[in-house]
Amino acid sequence: MVIPAKQAQPDRAQSPAQRLFDLSSDDMAAVDAIILDRMQSPVGLIPNLAHHLVGAGGKRLRPLLTVASAQLCGYNADDAHHKLAAAVEFIHSATLLHDDVVDESALRRGQKPANLIWGNSASILVGDFLFARAFNLMVEAGSMEALGILSTASSVIAEGEVQQLAALRDIAMTEDAYMSVIKAKTAALFAAATEVAPVIADRPVAERDALRDYGLKLGLAFQLVDDTLDYGGMESALGKSIGDDFREGKVTLPVIRAYNAASGDDKDFWKRVIVDHEQSGTDLERAVSLLRKTGALTSTLELAKSYADEAQAGLDIFPPSPLRDTLKALVSYVVERIN
Amino acid sequence: MVIPAKQAQPDRAQSPAQRLFDLSSDDMAAVDAIILDRMQSPVGLIPNLAHHLVGAGGKRLRPLLTVASAQLCGYNADDAHHKLAAAVEFIHSATLLHDDVVDESALRRGQKPANLIWGNSASILVGDFLFARAFNLMVEAGSMEALGILSTASSVIAEGEVQQLAALRDIAMTEDAYMSVIKAKTAALFAAATEVAPVIADRPVAERDALRDYGLKLGLAFQLVDDTLDYGGMESALGKSIGDDFREGKVTLPVIRAYNAASGDDKDFWKRVIVDHEQSGTDLERAVSLLRKTGALTSTLELAKSYADEAQAGLDIFPPSPLRDTLKALVSYVVERIN
Repeated sequence: MVIPAKQAQPDRAQSPAQRLFDLSSDDMAAVDAIILDRMQSPVGLIPNLAHHLVGAGGKRLRPLLTVASAQLCGYNADDAHHKLAAAVEFIHSATLLHDDVVDESALRRGQKPANLIWGNSASILVGDFLFARAFNLMVEAGSMEALGILSTASSVIAEGEVQQLAALRDIAMTEDAYMSVIKAKTAALFAAATEVAPVIADRPVAERDALRDYGLKLGLAFQLVDDTLDYGGMESALGKSIGDDFREGKVTLPVIRAYNAASGDDKDFWKRVIVDHEQSGTDLERAVSLLRKTGALTSTLELAKSYADEAQAGLDIFPPSPLRDTLKALVSYVVERIN
Repeated sequence: MVIPAKQAQPDRAQSPAQRLFDLSSDDMAAVDAIILDRMQSPVGLIPNLAHHLVGAGGKRLRPLLTVASAQLCGYNADDAHHKLAAAVEFIHSATLLHDDVVDESALRRGQKPANLIWGNSASILVGDFLFARAFNLMVEAGSMEALGILSTASSVIAEGEVQQLAALRDIAMTEDAYMSVIKAKTAALFAAATEVAPVIADRPVAERDALRDYGLKLGLAFQLVDDTLDYGGMESALGKSIGDDFREGKVTLPVIRAYNAASGDDKDFWKRVIVDHEQSGTDLERAVSLLRKTGALTSTLELAKSYADEAQAGLDIFPPSPLRDTLKALVSYVVERIN
């Protein structure tokens, strides 16, 4: 199986993500081989559906973080890091399959989501299969501590997803509540993906804390950038539709900030499109205009940048190396997708 | 938390299930406490929904099998068997929540299923949460071997569910294919529930094989009886609607046998109601009549009884004891629910 980033996105040839893929290409080829092998099943619908998602040129960002962190920690014992990296991607894939059913998205990675091709039931059950396979891989990796980290992350992710569901269309959501949602639903898996590496490499607790913190803050920055991209990027850049969050009535940080800064008609506008979920023709444009006017997109991006800075600074406990510098550069790259 | 079987079903006071609950009442109280504790979350929707399902008077049959098997194996080291038993119930509960969305059932344990109260999205995500919590508990139990058994069972269950989905309305399904579905979707968890006990008790491989085999065959018998009950029992006896499988166009062993024995009009009838899924007023009655006339219900029950006999015989490697005899009696009880 080829590494999708290499073939699908030649314009990223010089990007930090690409440099990281290059530094980790043998590892990522091994991870891809495990992913391909473990999505097989005599029940044909499973590999068909899984291949549509997992083979669809996803960024493989999370497993890349696991293998790069393992390299940084000098891990060279066996293939436990590859198995854990594949497990991380399977957890992420299972989440995406279930999210598509929950969110009713129209696009996923620039393609029709699996549930619109094979139906909701298939997406739910194949998601369950991939999630279970993730745990099979963790058992094979053999580290009970890594299992604890990833199983805890999995329950935290589900908790975050339920919290987000419960807050759907709740325009009065606080910033704290929102940050708690994205910490759970997005950043927890990034943090687990990086933390398992020092754990299996048996590195000191300071390195473990630093890498977990790096993953957590990278994950927060990543989600906040995603939230702004949903209102400000180009559709082709992200492989998702612009305005998805808006159409679903999803309350994200930019919306919370724009709503809190609004008054009169503008406040009523947000209540109508989010709380009452009554939207028509030009509402998305008005939302984008309000998000820009109130500085909500800019300030969300500033917050993302501050998490990014912290993620980078935390890596300074490791000695300088091309790998460390590329992990740092990756953070900037994630944040600067907006440009 | 009370043990539901005791309060909700006083008519079962002398049943083998009740005797087994009595012999294991301290263990089951400990399991219930873990279940109640681990379904908690600051995200209120999670305990609300989970309590509706887990607290709704489920049979707790699978965790009971784990603790009774642990007793039979003389396990007395710590509370790993309670944690594994609770994990087994969480895996089962997660499967039920997802099944309700997939099957669109009208009743679950005699109640409205959670997805009809809180919506499909909540059922999917809370199912994911319970599944993840199951793995948290397994990690705490500390046996990598038990984790391997239960994570493998989890992927096998999902595989069986997908296989069943792919075969929906496939009246030409073979008996072998059907047995492979129920072995995966139902019997695998029974087998894992009993096998983990000798594993953590570090018992010889013969006991491990015997208990896994006991669980597997009990599970097969259980599912085959369920399949006949869906056409022959009283609605109140099972807490599920009669004819659910029929209305969903689910092909079960009785239907396969009735179809294979049918000719002319009757064969066309099965094609219409299952393959074309065109059903009207008296079709369920005609289906029941054909199932009886062809002996399909009786022969399915005979097969269930032969698995039950094998399950019982396999326990003879253990010395006679009230617990062993009650585990044997439980098998007859499960099969004789039909009467």
